[in-house]
Amino acid sequence: MNYSIILYIVGWILNFQAVFMALPCVTALIYRERSGFAFLITMAVCVFIGLPLVRKKPSNKVFHTKEGYVTVALSWIVLSITGAIPFVISGSIPHPVDAVFETVSGFTTTGASILSSVEALPRCVLMWRSFTHWIGGMGVLVFLLCLLPLTGGYHMNLMRAESPGPTVSKLVPKVQSTAKILYTIYLALTLLEIFLLLLGGMPVFDTLCTAFGTAGTGGFGIKNDSIAGYSTYIQVVVTIFMILFGVNFSAYYLILTKKFVQAFKIEEVRWYLGIIAVSTLVITYNIRPMFNGIGTALKHAAFQVGSIITTTGFATTDFNQWPGVSRTILVMLMFVGACAGSTGGGIKVSRFIILTKAIGKELHLYLHPNAVKKVKMDQKTVAHEVIRSTNTFISVYVLIFAVSTLIIAFDNFDLVTNFTAVAATLNNIGPGLELVGPTGNFGLFSPLSKCVLIFDMLAGRLEIFPLLLIFVKDTWKKF
Amino acid sequence: MNYSIILYIVGWILNFQAVFMALPCVTALIYRERSGFAFLITMAVCVFIGLPLVRKKPSNKVFHTKEGYVTVALSWIVLSITGAIPFVISGSIPHPVDAVFETVSGFTTTGASILSSVEALPRCVLMWRSFTHWIGGMGVLVFLLCLLPLTGGYHMNLMRAESPGPTVSKLVPKVQSTAKILYTIYLALTLLEIFLLLLGGMPVFDTLCTAFGTAGTGGFGIKNDSIAGYSTYIQVVVTIFMILFGVNFSAYYLILTKKFVQAFKIEEVRWYLGIIAVSTLVITYNIRPMFNGIGTALKHAAFQVGSIITTTGFATTDFNQWPGVSRTILVMLMFVGACAGSTGGGIKVSRFIILTKAIGKELHLYLHPNAVKKVKMDQKTVAHEVIRSTNTFISVYVLIFAVSTLIIAFDNFDLVTNFTAVAATLNNIGPGLELVGPTGNFGLFSPLSKCVLIFDMLAGRLEIFPLLLIFVKDTWKKF
Repeated sequence: MNYSIILYIVGWILNFQAVFMALPCVTALIYRERSGFAFLITMAVCVFIGLPLVRKKPSNKVFHTKEGYVTVALSWIVLSITGAIPFVISGSIPHPVDAVFETVSGFTTTGASILSSVEALPRCVLMWRSFTHWIGGMGVLVFLLCLLPLTGGYHMNLMRAESPGPTVSKLVPKVQSTAKILYTIYLALTLLEIFLLLLGGMPVFDTLCTAFGTAGTGGFGIKNDSIAGYSTYIQVVVTIFMILFGVNFSAYYLILTKKFVQAFKIEEVRWYLGIIAVSTLVITYNIRPMFNGIGTALKHAAFQVGSIITTTGFATTDFNQWPGVSRTILVMLMFVGACAGSTGGGIKVSRFIILTKAIGKELHLYLHPNAVKKVKMDQKTVAHEVIRSTNTFISVYVLIFAVSTLIIAFDNFDLVTNFTAVAATLNNIGPGLELVGPTGNFGLFSPLSKCVLIFDMLAGRLEIFPLLLIFVKDTWKKF
Repeated sequence: MNYSIILYIVGWILNFQAVFMALPCVTALIYRERSGFAFLITMAVCVFIGLPLVRKKPSNKVFHTKEGYVTVALSWIVLSITGAIPFVISGSIPHPVDAVFETVSGFTTTGASILSSVEALPRCVLMWRSFTHWIGGMGVLVFLLCLLPLTGGYHMNLMRAESPGPTVSKLVPKVQSTAKILYTIYLALTLLEIFLLLLGGMPVFDTLCTAFGTAGTGGFGIKNDSIAGYSTYIQVVVTIFMILFGVNFSAYYLILTKKFVQAFKIEEVRWYLGIIAVSTLVITYNIRPMFNGIGTALKHAAFQVGSIITTTGFATTDFNQWPGVSRTILVMLMFVGACAGSTGGGIKVSRFIILTKAIGKELHLYLHPNAVKKVKMDQKTVAHEVIRSTNTFISVYVLIFAVSTLIIAFDNFDLVTNFTAVAATLNNIGPGLELVGPTGNFGLFSPLSKCVLIFDMLAGRLEIFPLLLIFVKDTWKKF
């Protein structure tokens, strides 16, 4: 284990965290809020620890898979803890477990809140909550890769550990250039959404927070009723952008490089859009009697489907009141999740494609025991390792799901609350059903349950293995 | 596809079915019930179709995996349909879908009923319901292998398709001898239970039905309150035998051949007993306030844990009223299931052991990318194919689970009812929670939902792939 490089990168993460907090500071200045000092103090703490750590470049830059995973896991833990300090100091969320829950929920783009009323919070705190979504969406280490002149050629292990999905495709041969392209697309799409929201007459503050929440597929609202109070135009814009941010970013790169045919041939994107279309139609039909006119039903159906499958978690209506079929579809979409290589969470559409094809292969083997059949995606053979690791991912996912549900069951809420609370955190969605539905919140859980859900949110965002590795004794061996 | 051998075996299955129905006929004679004629008529139908099919031995006895799976699937479908005829003719269950549901529930040892009052049924019908559990428990084709002089050396493909678990171990080199040993152990254990139940003063009729239900881990009761009305002695005997029938039968063979150390070293059995012990203790503690004294709580906890993990489905109390933690544990045990090579259903303990070890291997690979690590069980390397097919099993299991839940959601019951109804049928348990809890029944579902649940029961008993294969076009190609 190369400790010096890990500490070096964690040091940079702390410095970046200080820089990120400039935004809530500016917000506090504009609105003359005293809570701004909480961010200033935290910035000082971050720099005080961060700067010494990055003073000397480590001589040994060797960076194996192991170091990549551990660095990413530790960076996210450091981000979560330091990010929670302002909530505690400012008194917005006095209890440390609650504050860490809210911060992890932010960075992991979950959007699950322990707050019963967000409108009571100072604006700088609201801005910080939403901004954590934007930072976490595309990934902090990917951001760091854009800016830091890390040489040695091992960056791929960092990116692989932080990027969601069964495989990571480099858009261009150099990792740093890939990271830059990803962040440029991310920024451009965010700016476009901000522009369109402003055009709809949304206040600047609301626009920024909503855009951050959409781009990171996070879902922290700044109103108690999430997006329900805004105009239809704004709701439609948010719907479209949620779905756009759930698309595999490779598609955008292909479009940018004018490879339109290739972009529209990506299997995962086709399935993703297909699932959204079918779910929206079925739900529209199912909830039709609840609304005036099919148009309104369609609007709400599309919004909620987009919000859940991309794991954003915004809401325009209390879908906990919807009939059984719609609720069941939404629960299933929670697990499907968005595309790999997007800012969305969940198990990812591509994993389901791989699993479905593996089932087809298995059936084929029963019929032709000696046949050699490869699983293919986008005309390319899926490596045996990818199938194995996808399968293992599902197993460990189910295991974590079961253990989490069991532990939070000790709080004695109903089974649907427990089940969807774990589903909503492990898939980085935000709201679940019943007590943790769109009108509820996670404040009711015991501190132990909150810690379990914090673990689930981090495990969901980092796709489990990086987080698990830090609990394995072997990981920490010097050699 | 070798059609002639498939038809030949299906023909034998029909003849066997006629023989099986002798038991309810005798019961009808003893109790002078007119419903006995329904069985006589069905016997005639079976023999009328069955005898011509077995008149000529097929010349081509080649029997590939494919033929094995298709034969097993078709045999079970034929058993289910012919087994349902007496219910319809006798008027006990007039609707054909309901009758098939009840029969499939019997043969697959599920024990889910559409009847609201079983005590109103004639005794010969009750005997038939319970006897289907006993027939289905160890498998009809395994029974056929004991008696039929099938030569050609391909029988293993039949046994593999019908026996539960990720692998099938032949106890002795010859398949026919293995089948005979299995049925001898099965019969001996059943007789021992009958003896012990009679010793407790249970009436002969009740004893036979209860023993059949326990041995097959089925769970059809002959009383509306299942086993709740019987004495503590009888409840304890049933608890012990449910757990015994969930043990891998290889363990009994090892004990019979005096290999005690090996028997007690089987990993799956140790895990199985460990899970039962821990679950019972936690539930006892959790439900303690509901009962007078810790002894009663322990008795109920052990019974329900044994009943659910072995997927029997008997009940001594309405566990739907238990607190959240206990209910959550029971739902999880529904999925764990019993040991491979037992009469129990569910995903099977050995599959979970394999999956857990595969997770360990994956983590190991992150730390040592070039290491070669084998997954081992009982000191033997688990073949790559077994791991792959276990993984695929989980994927297709989840897929069927999701689709089933979605379809039955259209009946508009609550999510817990839908979820546990599918869990209880796909895992061949019987009762679920809420509306399908121990005091409820499956009669409330629409015919479409019942058909879905019938499919789930068969898929659960045959472990999915045999049933799926008959829907693949390629299967039916002549060559």
